[in-house]
Amino acid sequence: MKQYTVVMLWAFILSGFIGFSQTSQTAIAEDFKPSTVNQPGQEYPQVNSQGYARFQILAPEAKSVVVSLGLGGAKGGTVLAKGEDGIWRGTTAGAMDEGFHYYHVTIDGGVFNDPGALNFYGSTRWESGIEIPAHDQDFYALKNVPHGNVQQILFPSKSTNTSRRAFVYTPPGYHKDKSKQYPVLYLQHGWGEDETAWSNQGHVNLIMDNMIAEGKIKPFLIVMTYGMTNEIKYGGLASFKIEPFQTVLTEELIPYVDSNFRTLANQTNRAMAGLSMGGMETKSITLNKPEIFSHYALLSGGTYKPEDIKDKSKVKLIFLSCGSKERPDGIKDAVSTLKNAGFNAVPYISENTGHEFQTWRRSFKELAPLLFKE
Amino acid sequence: MKQYTVVMLWAFILSGFIGFSQTSQTAIAEDFKPSTVNQPGQEYPQVNSQGYARFQILAPEAKSVVVSLGLGGAKGGTVLAKGEDGIWRGTTAGAMDEGFHYYHVTIDGGVFNDPGALNFYGSTRWESGIEIPAHDQDFYALKNVPHGNVQQILFPSKSTNTSRRAFVYTPPGYHKDKSKQYPVLYLQHGWGEDETAWSNQGHVNLIMDNMIAEGKIKPFLIVMTYGMTNEIKYGGLASFKIEPFQTVLTEELIPYVDSNFRTLANQTNRAMAGLSMGGMETKSITLNKPEIFSHYALLSGGTYKPEDIKDKSKVKLIFLSCGSKERPDGIKDAVSTLKNAGFNAVPYISENTGHEFQTWRRSFKELAPLLFKE
Repeated sequence: MKQYTVVMLWAFILSGFIGFSQTSQTAIAEDFKPSTVNQPGQEYPQVNSQGYARFQILAPEAKSVVVSLGLGGAKGGTVLAKGEDGIWRGTTAGAMDEGFHYYHVTIDGGVFNDPGALNFYGSTRWESGIEIPAHDQDFYALKNVPHGNVQQILFPSKSTNTSRRAFVYTPPGYHKDKSKQYPVLYLQHGWGEDETAWSNQGHVNLIMDNMIAEGKIKPFLIVMTYGMTNEIKYGGLASFKIEPFQTVLTEELIPYVDSNFRTLANQTNRAMAGLSMGGMETKSITLNKPEIFSHYALLSGGTYKPEDIKDKSKVKLIFLSCGSKERPDGIKDAVSTLKNAGFNAVPYISENTGHEFQTWRRSFKELAPLLFKE
Repeated sequence: MKQYTVVMLWAFILSGFIGFSQTSQTAIAEDFKPSTVNQPGQEYPQVNSQGYARFQILAPEAKSVVVSLGLGGAKGGTVLAKGEDGIWRGTTAGAMDEGFHYYHVTIDGGVFNDPGALNFYGSTRWESGIEIPAHDQDFYALKNVPHGNVQQILFPSKSTNTSRRAFVYTPPGYHKDKSKQYPVLYLQHGWGEDETAWSNQGHVNLIMDNMIAEGKIKPFLIVMTYGMTNEIKYGGLASFKIEPFQTVLTEELIPYVDSNFRTLANQTNRAMAGLSMGGMETKSITLNKPEIFSHYALLSGGTYKPEDIKDKSKVKLIFLSCGSKERPDGIKDAVSTLKNAGFNAVPYISENTGHEFQTWRRSFKELAPLLFKE
């Protein structure tokens, strides 16, 4: 039964993975600029005001260069054409969805990264990334406001016999007011990603800094660790078991954080959220351990049913979200059912995005003000 | 005059950049294992017990695949040969120096990273990295000891009109004992690297954790920020001016760290060190600002002359180091002259290494116990 759910979720992830806007017949605006996640000083890849992406790769002797993003080409992706200068060039045949996209380049049958772009961990490898400017990009911009820190911690894990890495966001002022204690959100990445995803791709630290500066949220800590404890290979999700990760999270990481940071170390002040596979983990662990977490959030990561939950009084919030290009009706229906059963359930649908990070940045922005409201 | 020094240092960097051991005529030991800095689950590149590296790249339609490391090939590097399965394979013609090396792969005339290896920021781009196991690798290994944190901070910089990134190592226990104050080392990367280098390539946090666990050093904070404030392009070093970085470091970063961390905020408890170009910066800034730093260290980054220093009483330590394949006599002579002039000067030569990170890891291990000894 659990196995079945996992396989279905996996199919769901694949189906929604690559999101494009509708193809447009308008002329391409020649206002291309370097993507904001290019390597320092690199001019390509570029993006224009309509959401088109343009690529440029030097490979004078290559026979074929194909970028995995875009609508052109028999195999999908954007087929580049070689110029006399040995540089391959091409532009997506349509506008891309707003926000962050992973991609790679296939050169003569081998898969490589674009030398112009920064790399981000997704699909169990470091992949190239591109950022299509979003109309609402201001909420995750780097601004002149007080900034929190993102701390790499290495915590002892007996169950896996090593020191494991996690990142802890501490809000601005954490180091100054030495008596204040904070609630904690445990926040999980998706399949094939790792503990770097929420800050690198998601800018969750900047979203927090900006919302705290605007007085929109109560400051809290965010803890992000690696959630694929037993299998990293492709296809591993079908055999994923929650117990090894649940042990790391609840018996090793949480006690370490509570002992090394100034936390409010109780159920009322502890939340768990995750995107995609991280939502699946959140659902399993919050249901297995209702005495640990009080606020639950699944971002493109499934739903809860009222009958899943044994003790309604222990649940302060259930937040369910996805992109409008995923299955928004599933989210809305689940929230409606939960509300009818007396839960504080909140839905969020990100307009014109799919199973990608823009959906999860926006979801996080909606979720954060709802957490730890007492 | 200053300009001239810069150009000379740059020539010095280039001359010593790529280090190999002597070619050996012994048979290649077939005990190859994946490099420890491969991407998760990747079998190649591999290294053997003699220090040879073996590469494997899939690119079925490519005409030519050359790895920038190794001794074979007309252009230097290792020329790979294509198998019938479309995979290109090759082994370095000689043993490589122990420790970390940057590299890239040239495929049909274009420069890409090895999809099997993790990437590290060097040469102003994210490059592939490989680790040749060193006989002394234990001192930077991840061990079951209490671990410090590496915190990303974003500090306001009026002079550059942005929030700048730095990393701060806080030793184990920093978060627990809320009254203890610590000395601080400001530690700079080399040309083309950035503020990630000392922890990613250098493992400076693990070296600290291990030495603190062994009781060998007095715990201190380490602050690492980006040192190429005015020019990131290749060739920019010749026009490098210290003032913009000096302003960021001494007028913006240090006050921020002293106000946000529990530091001993005085000259006696403040050190500066840097590798290569970071050594050049350290020399300029410590000489310009003797009231700020008391401990100076140049790692493959030049030397001090007694007459450079105005007030001898302000200098507690001058540490100078390099690899034995660089210019060890220059280091030894300079230290000898400094000692004769009454300075507490300490030399260190890393055996059988060049202008690479193994020299700097070892140099740091020698430097750390000498800092802040009162």
